[in-house]
Amino acid sequence: MPFEPVDPVELTAKLIRCPSVTPAEGGAIALLAEVLGEAGFTCTRVDRGGIANLYARWGKQGANRAFGFNGHTDVVPVGDRAAWRFDPFGAEVKDGVMYGRGACDMKSGVAAFVAAAVDFVRETPPNGAVILAITGDEEGEGKDGTVAILDWMAFNGERMTHCLVGEPTCPNQMGEMMKIGRRGSLTARITVTGVQGHSAYPHRAKNPLSALVKLLAKLDAEPLDRGTPHFDPSTLAITTIDCGNPASNVIPAQATAVVNIRFNDTHSGDTLSAWLRHEAEAMAEATGCEIGLQISVSGEAFLTPPGELSALVARAVQAETGKKPVASTSGGTSDARFVKDHCPVIEFGLVGKTMHQVDERVEVAHIHQLKAIYGRILREYFA
Amino acid sequence: MPFEPVDPVELTAKLIRCPSVTPAEGGAIALLAEVLGEAGFTCTRVDRGGIANLYARWGKQGANRAFGFNGHTDVVPVGDRAAWRFDPFGAEVKDGVMYGRGACDMKSGVAAFVAAAVDFVRETPPNGAVILAITGDEEGEGKDGTVAILDWMAFNGERMTHCLVGEPTCPNQMGEMMKIGRRGSLTARITVTGVQGHSAYPHRAKNPLSALVKLLAKLDAEPLDRGTPHFDPSTLAITTIDCGNPASNVIPAQATAVVNIRFNDTHSGDTLSAWLRHEAEAMAEATGCEIGLQISVSGEAFLTPPGELSALVARAVQAETGKKPVASTSGGTSDARFVKDHCPVIEFGLVGKTMHQVDERVEVAHIHQLKAIYGRILREYFA
Repeated sequence: MPFEPVDPVELTAKLIRCPSVTPAEGGAIALLAEVLGEAGFTCTRVDRGGIANLYARWGKQGANRAFGFNGHTDVVPVGDRAAWRFDPFGAEVKDGVMYGRGACDMKSGVAAFVAAAVDFVRETPPNGAVILAITGDEEGEGKDGTVAILDWMAFNGERMTHCLVGEPTCPNQMGEMMKIGRRGSLTARITVTGVQGHSAYPHRAKNPLSALVKLLAKLDAEPLDRGTPHFDPSTLAITTIDCGNPASNVIPAQATAVVNIRFNDTHSGDTLSAWLRHEAEAMAEATGCEIGLQISVSGEAFLTPPGELSALVARAVQAETGKKPVASTSGGTSDARFVKDHCPVIEFGLVGKTMHQVDERVEVAHIHQLKAIYGRILREYFA
Repeated sequence: MPFEPVDPVELTAKLIRCPSVTPAEGGAIALLAEVLGEAGFTCTRVDRGGIANLYARWGKQGANRAFGFNGHTDVVPVGDRAAWRFDPFGAEVKDGVMYGRGACDMKSGVAAFVAAAVDFVRETPPNGAVILAITGDEEGEGKDGTVAILDWMAFNGERMTHCLVGEPTCPNQMGEMMKIGRRGSLTARITVTGVQGHSAYPHRAKNPLSALVKLLAKLDAEPLDRGTPHFDPSTLAITTIDCGNPASNVIPAQATAVVNIRFNDTHSGDTLSAWLRHEAEAMAEATGCEIGLQISVSGEAFLTPPGELSALVARAVQAETGKKPVASTSGGTSDARFVKDHCPVIEFGLVGKTMHQVDERVEVAHIHQLKAIYGRILREYFA
């Protein structure tokens, strides 16, 4: 049938020209709803807390096979505007490279899966559903983004059987890496309270800095684990220590520190919290200082074990790029941490090197390649 | 001869009424110059850098025996005026206690030795010299205070053979303690520079906080010594650690800490500096961070070994108070750290409990007792 295929490069350019810096919608979600609506997708705006989100389904609700794509149209701020050589919202192309905020993270990824999905359902209408869950809040707090869509889906009996998140996943070369899980992240603020005193008489005071330094040295010294088959070793980083005592003849009463732990599937937020509390209590006992912990877990570690979905993605990537993608669990958090509670999820997308940077950019050829990969995945999934 | 003895309580009150908060002279030095001049002392104002200082000598320059007293007329600020029950510059007496800034630190001490010295030279003119070195800058930086007088003395061939500093030395009971030395004080600012990075990838960064915590834990763990016959063990206190990194996903590039060491005669500023540099270099080597040290030694440890002077002071104290004073080296710094390069020096004075506090005060009876002790010392010294 003589369909005009969707040009993912043109769609990327249109999206870049929407100034959708979180939490602004900027016209991006509306543009996609229009494109998808015209192609026969049922589009629902799942806005929450001032954030625009789009749920688009082709095919029947509750289908046995319902392949989903997840991505975001919001972008981080421009940063130092004067340092950009190109208009951050211009989508200019020079020497085969398109420039603009969101060029790789991830308006191109969204454009590629939208284009692939539209072409697919027009060319070979599948026996099942194709679902696009697109949010306007991934770069922000994320509490009204993909989470809002998943909440709405659960409430309305909407379901994906498998999901691919289109975030950039390749460090340097197109096709070299997919993500099958992510480490979790825990942040602990440690507040140590001692007894102020004169630095000439430390035995009459209780120095909170002595206790803090000893505790941090202990936490920092122990390797948390040696890694697991699919994960690097967990890491702990002290990110700040603050006291603000200007007087060198005074032992201060209080000091704080923050540690950030990126953890693999050896641990959970709960087991690490218990470990931190145990160490803090032991140090409080040993030093006589009070040690308070304020812990927040922004994501648990998760893994989509290698299987049907990862094999499918790997075959498609290899067919289009000649590269067999490594199944990695490295990197920061993404919305896959929410999707994993809904269905098996994998991430695959472009080269992410310039994301969040000045002159963020994408090779035009890579956008075409990504659309082709996503198209192959859909065809094979429903074959 | 029918001399009218100088009333040290009245002189203390007059001095308290001079608002001589460092660096202000407040009339205190001028008042003493007048009292001493009338009694036959040669008075020289040795002002320097806006600070008023007084050098007063009775007897011949270059005498074989020249007993000196050292003290200061300047006082620390009033602090929370509303919290005072008495006028800080009023010298009110209630129930045998005089209140005011400088009541114990140390206008009373100065008044006592001035009164004792005047009475002594009038009653029993000695074969030797009595010298009073009184400064208006002990509570401040001290660079133009006693140091200025000692510089001037050296330049002009003036000399004390022994010196008593009249600072408050008794923790609780009049007569219980004299000081025969002081620990030294060294302050080191440690700056660790690493490589900034994402807290998810600590191996790509160099965390200056890891290095700093490890270094501080090491410095803080080792006892510096076990004390010496006349000194408590040396102490090290971490007084601040600062980084100011608000982002828990970022490993910072730099952090600083300050440690303060109070050291006995096992060490010197030089040996401790060498130790700190050695430990910092080893940690820099081990971690790949740069570690900078900015060290200042505000005083070396010193000791006037028990001997003629301490025995003389102890006898006088015991005769007047019934207590044998302990020979201690505890406490913060005093101008004795400068005098000790000039001649043997010991400190003895009042109960210092309320110094620098709101409602600073002194028992009137103790001022009389202190004058009597100083008078005994002079009589026995020249006997």
